[in-house]
Amino acid sequence: MKQYKGYLLDLDGTMYRGKEVIDAGVRLVERLRQKNIPYVFVTNNSSRRPDQVAEKLQGMGIPAAEKNVMTTSMATARYIKQTYGKVPVYVVGEEGIRDAVEAEGLIISDDKADVVVMGIDRGITYEKLAEACLFVREGAVFLSTNGDKAIPTERGMLPGNGSLTSVVQVSTGVDPLFIGKPEAVIMNQAMEVLGTEKAETLMIGDNYDTDILAGIRAGIDTLMVFTGVSTKEETAVKKEQPVWTVDSLDEWTL
Amino acid sequence: MKQYKGYLLDLDGTMYRGKEVIDAGVRLVERLRQKNIPYVFVTNNSSRRPDQVAEKLQGMGIPAAEKNVMTTSMATARYIKQTYGKVPVYVVGEEGIRDAVEAEGLIISDDKADVVVMGIDRGITYEKLAEACLFVREGAVFLSTNGDKAIPTERGMLPGNGSLTSVVQVSTGVDPLFIGKPEAVIMNQAMEVLGTEKAETLMIGDNYDTDILAGIRAGIDTLMVFTGVSTKEETAVKKEQPVWTVDSLDEWTL
Repeated sequence: MKQYKGYLLDLDGTMYRGKEVIDAGVRLVERLRQKNIPYVFVTNNSSRRPDQVAEKLQGMGIPAAEKNVMTTSMATARYIKQTYGKVPVYVVGEEGIRDAVEAEGLIISDDKADVVVMGIDRGITYEKLAEACLFVREGAVFLSTNGDKAIPTERGMLPGNGSLTSVVQVSTGVDPLFIGKPEAVIMNQAMEVLGTEKAETLMIGDNYDTDILAGIRAGIDTLMVFTGVSTKEETAVKKEQPVWTVDSLDEWTL
Repeated sequence: MKQYKGYLLDLDGTMYRGKEVIDAGVRLVERLRQKNIPYVFVTNNSSRRPDQVAEKLQGMGIPAAEKNVMTTSMATARYIKQTYGKVPVYVVGEEGIRDAVEAEGLIISDDKADVVVMGIDRGITYEKLAEACLFVREGAVFLSTNGDKAIPTERGMLPGNGSLTSVVQVSTGVDPLFIGKPEAVIMNQAMEVLGTEKAETLMIGDNYDTDILAGIRAGIDTLMVFTGVSTKEETAVKKEQPVWTVDSLDEWTL
């Protein structure tokens, strides 16, 4: 095993499963904290603010402050500011993305937009989609917090942001830039916060198609834990393999 | 030229452009009426009832009764009844599709559905999309009135039903059966109403990708008129050519 100086951690399937805490995940975070190794939780949930995510984790007994959280919404807002400056942004989405865009000093506008951002919006309307299409057709940059096709709920799998984003994508013929896992953008943003170099950073997650691919695309080492979505059998046939695999995060030595 | 016993006619770009009537189109319909040759207008507009479509045409001086109209909504409802019987149907859409489904004696249901139908719905909500996804995941047949990606309006190109349908398609991974042009389903339904055989029926339209392809896929002859969307240059490079082309419908002899 290698000693890493910074850790990027997935949440669902790695730290908890639905409402059930994964104890070995919690113990890993405890060990990171004791050794003063920085860590950031990286989540494709665009609807919550980072303080809300931290609060949820604290409620599960997981050591987490707001500075330990990078949501796709935060990564999206940071990316816009770094790439385009303080431009007017048309936002389709919930509190998390609106808050993140404003927190970066960007202007949320319904009249004029250099950038269109879509995040999960359970208050979606035809008018919101229509405005997004018109801005994209007029040449606005088209971003989407994440491409998740479906989100697990107690009712079953409901539409995720990737499927809502497809309305504008299909209608305009313009492909968005996705920010969340498995894209590298969110990883790069999280590493900036972490303050570590790629060669000394490890990404840990349970989902090959989001967590592990994101690490691979960002050019950092990956640790796969089989406590969530992906199975050993599915993972074994993938062309690009995670650097490390464990059944439980208790097996991982810092 | 060949003498056809039944005519299928496109509307926008063939009979009118926006609010402007195409006179040669109107004269063709007049000639059809005088010769007692049956004709049916075939439209991908799923939001209006056939009497509303006929009324609009009458207002433009185009001879049209309700029996001369086949909307995608009517074709969809007829197809469901013929294929599955009087099953419970979950409907996402406006008045046209709801009215058509009820007119065929089918049961519109939010609790139980053997078939999910999507038509353009400018009152779309996350809950409607969520229900559609859940029914499709439970095994309901997935239909969509038409795959139009965008609809022209005074504000610009707004999301069409094909782009709204993509939410459920992308989220569930299930491809819908589209009913409208360029699919053959609507053509077959219109020919049933017309009462003519394929060999004696002609489809007239201005849009290669919807009208002409629909005729080709249904195995009937096609007449392309260059008064709308498609240009001669675009059409010339298509692999499958329309049987006839004219610059004005005045050139066409019955």
